[in-house]
Amino acid sequence: MTTSSRHRAGSAGVGATPRTRVRRIPEKAVRDRTALHAVLDAGLVAHVAVQGEDGQPFVVPVAYARDGERVLFHGSTGSRLFRGLAAGAPTCLTVTLLDGMVLARSTFESSMHYRSAMVLGSCTVLAGEEKLAALELVTEHLLPGRWTEARHPNRKELNATLVLALPLDETSVKISDGPPSDVPEDVHLPIWAGTVPLREAFGRPVPAPDLEHEVGVPGYVKKWKR
Amino acid sequence: MTTSSRHRAGSAGVGATPRTRVRRIPEKAVRDRTALHAVLDAGLVAHVAVQGEDGQPFVVPVAYARDGERVLFHGSTGSRLFRGLAAGAPTCLTVTLLDGMVLARSTFESSMHYRSAMVLGSCTVLAGEEKLAALELVTEHLLPGRWTEARHPNRKELNATLVLALPLDETSVKISDGPPSDVPEDVHLPIWAGTVPLREAFGRPVPAPDLEHEVGVPGYVKKWKR
Repeated sequence: MTTSSRHRAGSAGVGATPRTRVRRIPEKAVRDRTALHAVLDAGLVAHVAVQGEDGQPFVVPVAYARDGERVLFHGSTGSRLFRGLAAGAPTCLTVTLLDGMVLARSTFESSMHYRSAMVLGSCTVLAGEEKLAALELVTEHLLPGRWTEARHPNRKELNATLVLALPLDETSVKISDGPPSDVPEDVHLPIWAGTVPLREAFGRPVPAPDLEHEVGVPGYVKKWKR
Repeated sequence: MTTSSRHRAGSAGVGATPRTRVRRIPEKAVRDRTALHAVLDAGLVAHVAVQGEDGQPFVVPVAYARDGERVLFHGSTGSRLFRGLAAGAPTCLTVTLLDGMVLARSTFESSMHYRSAMVLGSCTVLAGEEKLAALELVTEHLLPGRWTEARHPNRKELNATLVLALPLDETSVKISDGPPSDVPEDVHLPIWAGTVPLREAFGRPVPAPDLEHEVGVPGYVKKWKR
């Protein structure tokens, strides 16, 4: 299910290992780190693979943030699956942004516009100052401006939280954009073809029913855009 | 990272096995099949786990559709990872819909509104009439109305496509909604708290630059809503 898409050359090794080389639809592969960073910075939720004891994989949505050349995310210290990640189990973290629908004349070439980044590797557990800094980054990635105002985690909350870092060593990025790419004989069919963009937007903030103070919606929240 | 959320009792076994019982934040677990179906029907992309030969898991975004008590999705017959799924490798398919941001007074209780469904199991390969019907369902799930108008897959395209079915036998659903749930001592803090909804919407359709006929945007496309 191909569409016209970008391929960018670069030297920094995105998609450079046999495991991350994009075998299917290689024209969608993007090889520069700027694109990798941009996709990770644009997403809000990542899907992380965790292997259960019996070989059963699990795919779990997590909040995350990029910190230079690594991705940070957190889970509960009580979770078996996160404890497996903390012990260094091989994992995969994927971020996918859906940008629109692609209507080719054929169903086979019909598809979606998307940006997807995949990171393979093993996590390390963050502690102390680094752990708190990571939680700040994840909060600020999701809720820009909030860390300064909100109550920071106390010792008990920190102890209940496992913070993991996954290096951006083995990665791949795929970006699908542009018009549909029908096979030449289909272009003549009298069928509408094109794309339909899909956009995310924030709605009006809803105050908590138990707000006790006359505080309005903070300015940093009003500025949020998707 | 808890928020107020729904827990619905049901008898049909969503979250009923030890592997799918929601251990963390169990108040978010939803146990009826209607909720499971609704989340799967609302999503556009699923993330599927596939195990590589060396124990490395991969998380791959796929288009999918629900067909009664199973999920259908497709990939390329040329993909090693999809061939592993076709051979019956255990997998997990997760659909996550992000509905908003939750701003508690504490960063620890801050979170997101989401609906997430997880399906564990092994796939079977569909062939013949069933394969074509599955492709119709996936197309109609993503692009309602399109199957009737678009050119259907030919033999070559069908041969290049692997269509998989994953039964909804072992599943779990988590739904996070409602206001932030701060600990009692935080409710008194003079910090704004609440939620910010996140919505998806289709933009204006963009015709393909190689449209040869004077065909306007189809009525079924104009009706699409998220």
